[in-house]
Amino acid sequence: MSVLITGSVALDSVKTPLEEHHELMGGSASYASMAASFFTPVNMVGIVGSDFPKKYFELYRQHGINLDGLQVADGPTFRWSGEYEWDLNKRRTLSVCLNVFETFQPGLPEAYKATPYVLLANISPQLQMHVLAQVSGPKFVVADTMDLWIEKQRDALVELLRHIDCLILNESEAREFTQQTNLIKAGRQILKLGPKFVVVKKGEHGSLLFGNDMFFSAPAYPLEDIHDPTGAGDCFAGGFTGYLARKDRIDPNTLRNAVIHGSVIASYCVEDFSLTRLESLTQPEIKERYDLFQVMSRFEMS
Amino acid sequence: MSVLITGSVALDSVKTPLEEHHELMGGSASYASMAASFFTPVNMVGIVGSDFPKKYFELYRQHGINLDGLQVADGPTFRWSGEYEWDLNKRRTLSVCLNVFETFQPGLPEAYKATPYVLLANISPQLQMHVLAQVSGPKFVVADTMDLWIEKQRDALVELLRHIDCLILNESEAREFTQQTNLIKAGRQILKLGPKFVVVKKGEHGSLLFGNDMFFSAPAYPLEDIHDPTGAGDCFAGGFTGYLARKDRIDPNTLRNAVIHGSVIASYCVEDFSLTRLESLTQPEIKERYDLFQVMSRFEMS
Repeated sequence: MSVLITGSVALDSVKTPLEEHHELMGGSASYASMAASFFTPVNMVGIVGSDFPKKYFELYRQHGINLDGLQVADGPTFRWSGEYEWDLNKRRTLSVCLNVFETFQPGLPEAYKATPYVLLANISPQLQMHVLAQVSGPKFVVADTMDLWIEKQRDALVELLRHIDCLILNESEAREFTQQTNLIKAGRQILKLGPKFVVVKKGEHGSLLFGNDMFFSAPAYPLEDIHDPTGAGDCFAGGFTGYLARKDRIDPNTLRNAVIHGSVIASYCVEDFSLTRLESLTQPEIKERYDLFQVMSRFEMS
Repeated sequence: MSVLITGSVALDSVKTPLEEHHELMGGSASYASMAASFFTPVNMVGIVGSDFPKKYFELYRQHGINLDGLQVADGPTFRWSGEYEWDLNKRRTLSVCLNVFETFQPGLPEAYKATPYVLLANISPQLQMHVLAQVSGPKFVVADTMDLWIEKQRDALVELLRHIDCLILNESEAREFTQQTNLIKAGRQILKLGPKFVVVKKGEHGSLLFGNDMFFSAPAYPLEDIHDPTGAGDCFAGGFTGYLARKDRIDPNTLRNAVIHGSVIASYCVEDFSLTRLESLTQPEIKERYDLFQVMSRFEMS
C-alpha cells in the first residue's frame, strides 16, 4: 500500500561543534518520504521554490517518491538554519525563512486522494488538516507535531487529534502539551483526546508506544557518533508509517515492528548530515540493525 | 549463594509535594538488603545507633537478613532528610547527620568472610574498599556509587573500580564521572577502568548494561503513581545482585534477567514510602511484573 506524506521541504544550514554545512536538502517531508520509501511507494505533497536543486528531484525519484504533489513555485525555497551544542540533544534555531511555504495551500492531485496510509509530517496542524480533508477514507493516519504548534496553534492541534489514528511527538512536547511531568500519564492523557495510538520519542532513550490496551517500550540504538540529529524524528515517523503501509495491517506486533523500523531508519539518518546516509542505505543494512535492536532488548526466563 | 551487603542504615525524613514522613527506615544497605532478600540469604554489614527502632531489626530478620554484621553503637543513628519537587526526578537533600556512621570502620564477622557475592551499596569508596578487602576470593563484586563520591573521592573510586566486577551508577553520574555527554561512550569508558560490567540507571527511561562483548537496554516499568523515589537505586542494586547470587552464574542472559529483577523490585519500592511496599511484596507479584517487563519490550519479526 502507498503512503501520502505532506510536510515541509527545505534547504537547511546546520552547524555542529565540529562541522557546518549549507543548502542541504531538509524539511519534514523530505526526511519522512525518504525514510518511508524503504518500505513502500510514497506520494509526496509539498512546495519548493524555483531555486530547489534539480539533483534533489532526481534523488526523490530514485527512491520511488511520486512528485506529482510537489509544487514548484516562483521564489526561494523554505530555508531553516540551526546550531547544535556539544550535547547534541540541545538545538537552537538560528533562522527560519518560510519563503514559498508561507502561502502554501496544497490541492491534492486526483491520483493521491485514495492513498490508504497518510503521514502528516511536521507542519502546522491547520495545513495538516487541510491535506487530510482531501483524502477519502484513509485506513490509517499518523501525525507528527512539535513544540511550536503546541504553543501557537493548540486548538487546531486538539481538533486534528480527533481525525487521526496516531500522534507522534517527543518527550518534552508530550509533557508540555499535557502539563504532566509523568510521561506515562502524559501519553495516556493524549490517548483520551482522540488518537488510538501515541508514540513518544525519547531520543537516546528510545520511544514509548501507547494504545488503549497496549504499551511498548522500544530501546534506542546505542550510537557513539552522531553527526547531525536533524531529521531523526521525521525519519522515525516516515519509517514507522511506511512500514505499516507495507504490511497493511494494524495489530500490536506490527505496530511494535513499525516503531523499531522507524528507529532503525532514524539511527542511520543521524550518522551523517542531511539525507546523505539514507542515500546509500540498503535493505540488508536495515535488517542487520533490526536484528541488533532485537538482540539488545531481549531476555529469556532463565 | 548468599550475598554480603554493606552500606548505610539510616532514619529518613522524606517530603514530597503531597506527603511528609519522618523517622522512616532508610539507607542504602536497608533498601538493598530487603531487595536482595527476595532472592537469596543476606549478610548485612552496617551500623545503627542505640535509638534504632526494634521493629526494624525484626523486619530484617523476617526477611532472612543476617544481622551479625550490623553493629549497634552508642549514640544516634545516621539521619537523612530530603525533599522532592513535583517532578519526582528532582531531589534536594535538606540535612545529613552522620552520627554513629561518622567513625564506622566495620570488621566483618568470621562467618561473613567467605560470602561469594558482594554488594558494596552506596557509601564512600574508602569504606567499600575497607569491607571488600576482608572478603576472601569473592565470585562477583558489585558496587553502587553516587555524585558525592565522584566529586569528593574520585581517586578512591577509580581505585575501587580495579577490584570490582560491576559498577552501578545513574545517568547523570556516568556523564559527570567520564565528562561525556554521550551515554554510550560514557558506559564504555568506565569499562576500561576495570569492571567487566557497568549498569547505567536512567530512572523512568530504564537502564543500560554494558559489557565488553554485550549490551542490554532494559525498559522502565510504566508507573503512573510514584509516591517516594527514595531507595529505588538501592533496591535495583540489591535485586540485581541478589538475583545473580541465587542463580550463581554470570552469563549474558542471567545478567539481563538480574537487571530486570532489580528493576521489578525498584518499581515496587517507589509505590510507597520507605520499605513499606516491600514488606508485603510476594513472589507471585515479582513474577507478574517480570512477565509485564517481557511483554512490554518484546517484538517478533512479522
